[in-house]
Amino acid sequence: MITGKNYIGKLLSNKGSKKYQTFNPELNQENPVEFTEASSEEIEEAVNLASKAFQEFRFISGTKKAEFLNAIADEILALDDKLVEMYCSETGLPEGRAKGERGRTIGQLRSFANLVEEGSWVEATIDKAQPNREPMPRLDIRKMNIPLGPVVVFGASNFPLAYSTAGGDTAAALAAGCTVIVKSHPMHSGTGELVASAIIKAAEKTGMPNGVFSNLNSSGIEVGQQLVANPKVKAVGFTGSIKGGRALLDLSAKREEPIPVFAEMGSINPVVILPEALANRNAEIAKTYAGSITLGTGQFCTNPGLILGVKSDALSAFVNHLSQEILEIDPTCMLHPNIKKGYNANKEKVASQENVTITANYESDVAYNHAQQAVVSVDGKTFLENSTLHLEVFGPFSMVVQCKNKAELEQVITSLEGQLTGTIISDNDEISNYTNVIAALQNRVGRIIFNGVPTGVEVCESMVHGGPYPASTDSRFSAVGITSIKRWVRPFSYQSWPNNLLPNELKNENPLNIFRTIDGERTKEKL
Amino acid sequence: MITGKNYIGKLLSNKGSKKYQTFNPELNQENPVEFTEASSEEIEEAVNLASKAFQEFRFISGTKKAEFLNAIADEILALDDKLVEMYCSETGLPEGRAKGERGRTIGQLRSFANLVEEGSWVEATIDKAQPNREPMPRLDIRKMNIPLGPVVVFGASNFPLAYSTAGGDTAAALAAGCTVIVKSHPMHSGTGELVASAIIKAAEKTGMPNGVFSNLNSSGIEVGQQLVANPKVKAVGFTGSIKGGRALLDLSAKREEPIPVFAEMGSINPVVILPEALANRNAEIAKTYAGSITLGTGQFCTNPGLILGVKSDALSAFVNHLSQEILEIDPTCMLHPNIKKGYNANKEKVASQENVTITANYESDVAYNHAQQAVVSVDGKTFLENSTLHLEVFGPFSMVVQCKNKAELEQVITSLEGQLTGTIISDNDEISNYTNVIAALQNRVGRIIFNGVPTGVEVCESMVHGGPYPASTDSRFSAVGITSIKRWVRPFSYQSWPNNLLPNELKNENPLNIFRTIDGERTKEKL
Repeated sequence: MITGKNYIGKLLSNKGSKKYQTFNPELNQENPVEFTEASSEEIEEAVNLASKAFQEFRFISGTKKAEFLNAIADEILALDDKLVEMYCSETGLPEGRAKGERGRTIGQLRSFANLVEEGSWVEATIDKAQPNREPMPRLDIRKMNIPLGPVVVFGASNFPLAYSTAGGDTAAALAAGCTVIVKSHPMHSGTGELVASAIIKAAEKTGMPNGVFSNLNSSGIEVGQQLVANPKVKAVGFTGSIKGGRALLDLSAKREEPIPVFAEMGSINPVVILPEALANRNAEIAKTYAGSITLGTGQFCTNPGLILGVKSDALSAFVNHLSQEILEIDPTCMLHPNIKKGYNANKEKVASQENVTITANYESDVAYNHAQQAVVSVDGKTFLENSTLHLEVFGPFSMVVQCKNKAELEQVITSLEGQLTGTIISDNDEISNYTNVIAALQNRVGRIIFNGVPTGVEVCESMVHGGPYPASTDSRFSAVGITSIKRWVRPFSYQSWPNNLLPNELKNENPLNIFRTIDGERTKEKL
Repeated sequence: MITGKNYIGKLLSNKGSKKYQTFNPELNQENPVEFTEASSEEIEEAVNLASKAFQEFRFISGTKKAEFLNAIADEILALDDKLVEMYCSETGLPEGRAKGERGRTIGQLRSFANLVEEGSWVEATIDKAQPNREPMPRLDIRKMNIPLGPVVVFGASNFPLAYSTAGGDTAAALAAGCTVIVKSHPMHSGTGELVASAIIKAAEKTGMPNGVFSNLNSSGIEVGQQLVANPKVKAVGFTGSIKGGRALLDLSAKREEPIPVFAEMGSINPVVILPEALANRNAEIAKTYAGSITLGTGQFCTNPGLILGVKSDALSAFVNHLSQEILEIDPTCMLHPNIKKGYNANKEKVASQENVTITANYESDVAYNHAQQAVVSVDGKTFLENSTLHLEVFGPFSMVVQCKNKAELEQVITSLEGQLTGTIISDNDEISNYTNVIAALQNRVGRIIFNGVPTGVEVCESMVHGGPYPASTDSRFSAVGITSIKRWVRPFSYQSWPNNLLPNELKNENPLNIFRTIDGERTKEKL
């Protein structure tokens, strides 16, 4: 069933010589299938095909695109247990998680299908001609969003379905009318190939041009680099490490034509716990956070890696509670031995810094590639002075920073790099005494949460998943939710264009019955 | 009246040692006032002040921001003849143009004032909690646009009012809630200081924080470089040359935290003339284009620098007509001797390429710094093979490319760099035979025009002024029109946030009575 080959459009191809296998972290052994990394020639073919297919795909109607997206969802579901088994074998994640993530992936595809089928997302805007305006007549101008071109999507290690082959970036780009080339993640190339086969089937069933989608295997960084450097590629979507995302951004910056690189990267997701909440709900908050820190073996981008408070007996008690609670939790498997290795190295690096106290460290033996969760504590001054403490430790780890007072707490927040989320744990009205703290936190994050946990990213229109650099490379866009389609489009104006040659979205008679802004008023009216 | 000093917030300051003067190109002599370039220390002060002021300004209501923007417009009008005289003395442009551009500037300020006073521009989006949703409850999430932070604006040489000190970029950034530091254009620093004084007066009258606006003089590139490299600066707006814009983009790419650089740069604005139109309206089109090419001495970013057609007797006749018509026009003054020098050098460079025929070149003597208009003609093959011919010749110049057939015409269009505009001149239904040509043109431009001229950029919601690189650095945004505010904001989510602490835009009771999207429906309803 799995071939280990690349999809160059609908063609299965393995011209390259570099082979690799994925790894089952639970069994601590390589999976049997041998994957062939895409060769230079295959990469070039995929891009040329994507560029050619774009000339057709960009004019395909919203209704047809919706059929395609829904068909992808159907074909993914039809993969059934094969997909779930492959997912688990390549990630060490449990079946429940695989099914949950599949549900999220399907949900995303269908919500983009609904969006483009309805059609108003193009933000059609019409300013009618005013031939008698003084001193100069106004001409008829009409605007709508159009796709950028072929997009390269880099799959994420930690979301083999929802942020990889047919994940949020791909779904949004296809919905926008962009053709997509996925650089498959080397840790789950089997899952990637299965999902790619579903997309190819869906494309054929719904009559999409060959090349609307390609899937390229890669074990290192070369495939991605060659893709991003190709002049026919017009945008990049990435979910992963700061190092990886920044490398792609730098590569784009060196192109003759720089292109948008939307990378969703690292975040330690600061959580501020206020005194009254600490006094009233100390053990409860500790228990909740022990769960959030270890959720998915701590491998979520919204994992709470930093907990901030003002030094007090209650905060000390909280550190104890959190440390006890987190050690109660059974260790779980990480995605890959390299991820486990990185976790251990980063944890030790941070824990070994001066003035850092390890308050919890799961020390019993664990199964292969399972992560030993840990909590450390440090004072605010040390945190401010040592930037190593600001690094993300990807895994079930969190650091409690005990600030000497409110001012230092604000200073600590201001010193942070950009983050996906910030959370305030507060009781009653105490939050109103922390206006500056909240303002400082807002400056550093894309989403702010009251009395909750940052893990769990709802897929909805009001969600922002992104934030100031390095949470993402462009905070003006979200990676999650239907508005993420805006990353892949540009506005385009038609001036005095004949009505019969306008796209349906902008025709006088509004044949798609979409909402449009006509002379400043949002309406479904005809002209 | 003019001091030659920098505005560091409301403080007039001249600590630097580098002095320069502006130039009157009509009189061919320096203007009397000596300007002091901002020192490193002053640049730092301006940025620190802008950063501090941002912490207050970002929370100021739309109504107050509207007062500020309207007050700027009022204060600019109050400068009256002083401003017009200064403008003319620094640009060589006529009084009518000064007044026209002032009107456009005022109009832009007032339209942003209206936008933020009304308030719906923040795109408030609310997804209500669904506590009983299965398998997981949905939390209350609310989103709106918030400002990025201090923005640096680079004034344009060719629009001393509408795209400089209080021009489109500044108006949009202030409307968004960003504080602004203008790097004044060295060619019109007097105009810049007058407008800056108006902004400072308006800020004081309407109670804005000191540092909401600063104006820094500069004669070279160092002031701009230091500004863009400053970590407290969060975005950049630029209108000017490809070289200048690219340098800023590269500088941003090297920052620890890269920031959005929105640069509107070069464009040669291809115009495609189809055969029937050529047959029916040859002389008329030639006359119209002679006017468009020489408008504002050819110093508009939408100047039609490239005219494309399929080789025919009618096209030859058109070249003759255009060449005759353009020589009928009285030469006019360029903005600065350096611009004239650049015009001559670029014109000669292009005209001296192999197979290029000069069909019109105004050879009589002209007054100081007046530009001698020119038209050249070349075959499609030569144009495709020689990239020097794709360069922008900033000034009253255009090149006619005579393609051997429709396929070569399409190839020529595809070979072009990104452009602000593309124009099709067509009669009756002949355009329907040129689907591929139009599709190719659409791929290369931000705005497409039917039977018109690219010069004249309407300020309205449906306008796109921008396009694929190098027309602009990010084609996803327009530099003109109220949607240009989106360059300076990012979406921000509040999750489960207490109603009384939400910004007014997101409160249950909708106190600002703005349009919001609640569970997917656009409405002014309360919750």
